[in-house]
Amino acid sequence: MDFENFFTAELDKLREAGNYRVFADLERHKGQFPKATRYGEDGESEVTVWCSNDYLGMGQHRKTIDAMKEAIDKCGAGAGGTRNISGTNHYHILLEEELADLHNKEAALMLTSGYVANWAALGTLASRIPACEIFSDSDNHASMIEGIRHSRAPKHLWRHNDPEHLDQMLSQADPDVPKLVAFESVYSMDGDICPMAEILDVCEKHGAMSYLDEVHAVGLYGPRGGGIAEREGLMDRVTVIQGTLGKAYGVMGGYIAASANLVDFVRSFASGFIFSTALPPALAAGARASIRHLKTSDIERLRQRRNVALLRERLDAIGVPHMMNESHIVPVMVGDAKKCKFISDLLLENHGVYVQPINYPTVPKGTERLRITPSPMHTQADIEHLVGALSELWSQCALSRAVA
Amino acid sequence: MDFENFFTAELDKLREAGNYRVFADLERHKGQFPKATRYGEDGESEVTVWCSNDYLGMGQHRKTIDAMKEAIDKCGAGAGGTRNISGTNHYHILLEEELADLHNKEAALMLTSGYVANWAALGTLASRIPACEIFSDSDNHASMIEGIRHSRAPKHLWRHNDPEHLDQMLSQADPDVPKLVAFESVYSMDGDICPMAEILDVCEKHGAMSYLDEVHAVGLYGPRGGGIAEREGLMDRVTVIQGTLGKAYGVMGGYIAASANLVDFVRSFASGFIFSTALPPALAAGARASIRHLKTSDIERLRQRRNVALLRERLDAIGVPHMMNESHIVPVMVGDAKKCKFISDLLLENHGVYVQPINYPTVPKGTERLRITPSPMHTQADIEHLVGALSELWSQCALSRAVA
Repeated sequence: MDFENFFTAELDKLREAGNYRVFADLERHKGQFPKATRYGEDGESEVTVWCSNDYLGMGQHRKTIDAMKEAIDKCGAGAGGTRNISGTNHYHILLEEELADLHNKEAALMLTSGYVANWAALGTLASRIPACEIFSDSDNHASMIEGIRHSRAPKHLWRHNDPEHLDQMLSQADPDVPKLVAFESVYSMDGDICPMAEILDVCEKHGAMSYLDEVHAVGLYGPRGGGIAEREGLMDRVTVIQGTLGKAYGVMGGYIAASANLVDFVRSFASGFIFSTALPPALAAGARASIRHLKTSDIERLRQRRNVALLRERLDAIGVPHMMNESHIVPVMVGDAKKCKFISDLLLENHGVYVQPINYPTVPKGTERLRITPSPMHTQADIEHLVGALSELWSQCALSRAVA
Repeated sequence: MDFENFFTAELDKLREAGNYRVFADLERHKGQFPKATRYGEDGESEVTVWCSNDYLGMGQHRKTIDAMKEAIDKCGAGAGGTRNISGTNHYHILLEEELADLHNKEAALMLTSGYVANWAALGTLASRIPACEIFSDSDNHASMIEGIRHSRAPKHLWRHNDPEHLDQMLSQADPDVPKLVAFESVYSMDGDICPMAEILDVCEKHGAMSYLDEVHAVGLYGPRGGGIAEREGLMDRVTVIQGTLGKAYGVMGGYIAASANLVDFVRSFASGFIFSTALPPALAAGARASIRHLKTSDIERLRQRRNVALLRERLDAIGVPHMMNESHIVPVMVGDAKKCKFISDLLLENHGVYVQPINYPTVPKGTERLRITPSPMHTQADIEHLVGALSELWSQCALSRAVA
């Protein structure tokens, strides 16, 4: 087989479908979030980032930065090994204590990313608990799907955010079989939030373990940033809470929080944990500082919500359609892969606005969108500028407007 | 099912078998590698680390540290998104260029860890190349095994480091089927090095793609630290070189280097790449500085080799058995899980020496060992101290000595 020809042909198919990804080459500026320099073919230009998952700008917060630099000065760059073989650093232990406290659980375990946390934890639980069956929300993230696939446990898909359907499926299952229900609180691409209490009622009715992905919620919701489960007063009813250090906390890494035994079980059996070099101490230190800050400070969350409301109001005023939800994620719907990329390109080239187009396979075909994430640091002028540019492009592309 | 009881019972089984892992809680000290503070139940104590994968101490090198702090000052903590959605930073681009140059390949792609690099690259190539079959060295690392498993491609295991057996297996396969041969250069636990030229001869004879894991070799072998393939002058014959930024380069992260099309293919289709937050800019900057340093500096490699030779000589003199190999990894063989842990515990408690016991499943039962990794920074006094302690414990545990 001519491998090179095969790769070229597959990449050409992506290009033809408008799904070939071109990464924007950025340089963020500490203290000037959400501004960045973009390295383009024609040189450098200044842009305003409107699609960062550093939702609260904590990646540039003084406390986060200072903690990272302090840890580097104290311990150096990397961890130097897997957690088991010389790679556990005291900063890891402190971070895990902080995370357990955040979610009011007995223990927590850091993994190298949110993706690895889901893949390794779900993969380990579902494959090692004898005869375990998985009940997975149909919109779950790729990392959960891969973890479940990895486990080879029988998998049942329940309709997105539909506890009644979950109840039906669990009722049809063998009562003696161990069951694990996997779902998210805030769904990344639509920004909708699950009916958590109803889902947990159903889990408890059937004796199922609940596995909740809060990556788009930790730091952002709840009085201490514990996520939707904290906001709803439901943390103690969730078996496993999975989260990330790479979004609202502004650093990198993933984790689970649960009972001491469950965490120890994943720690002891998950290949993706055991055989990976541990996170650098500086990342653990930075994330911990960020978590601690957001446990007591509400100002970032309040400003973000104000900006989300303002943006939605202004989009309504000009009739640019955005998917309604109660979260911080504003999906502006385009519905066509090529137009979505075209608008994104023009925003970048002509308006200094960076919003990445979201196309298949991240979202279903026909629902291509600009996923806008207002931060506490965007100014009212930034919002007006974005809305003006979108209005212009909406006319240029002959896209339909929503009825105001 | 009572999940808690199940977890407890499984953990108890590990404890009974002597395979329950207790992580040493360490605090490394910048500039004092390989010294660290250990946080124990009875307070803090100073230890010498003898099992770090920061093989050359680059995690504490001034250039690595300075580059990280500079990037934090410039850009902040995290990348703020996946590579596609606002997470590509100019430091990532520069690092990927550096890696492509290191291996004399057209392109390179950074992933969040070496584990994820193997899992995602092998999983994507083997599942997406139609009818692809995998030929995997029987001692390949867990991350390669999981990637291959993930692909669900037919897998053939060839005897470890045996090109003739590989040739037989490839000869028996359908000539028209695309084939991928996966192997490592330096094997982590035995420290043996593959017969690379012979393996590549066989790959080429059968038109198979070669996938080479160099994680325990990059930075350490070859005139510029390009690994065993560079040392042997074979880089251009290997289809994919996979490496890590978390061992000899002292930071964290994994990568592949290959043709532009192959790299673009993995970039475009690998779920574990697409859906993970990118590495913090500071890690990319630190790793790049470390790579650049080791492209021209040989002193770290020479000092490490001198220490490896000295340790082996001293172990021979006292008859403590160590597995022979031509790498920097010195496996001191114990052959019993409980004794291995016992010796490691006493080294730590009584001698201030930290060497993690390596037990099943990392190595086969009956081959439990202390895996010692001398660095350029260990002093002759450190070596004498370690050897003296081992000699004492060997007698105490009534372990047999090798014939000198």
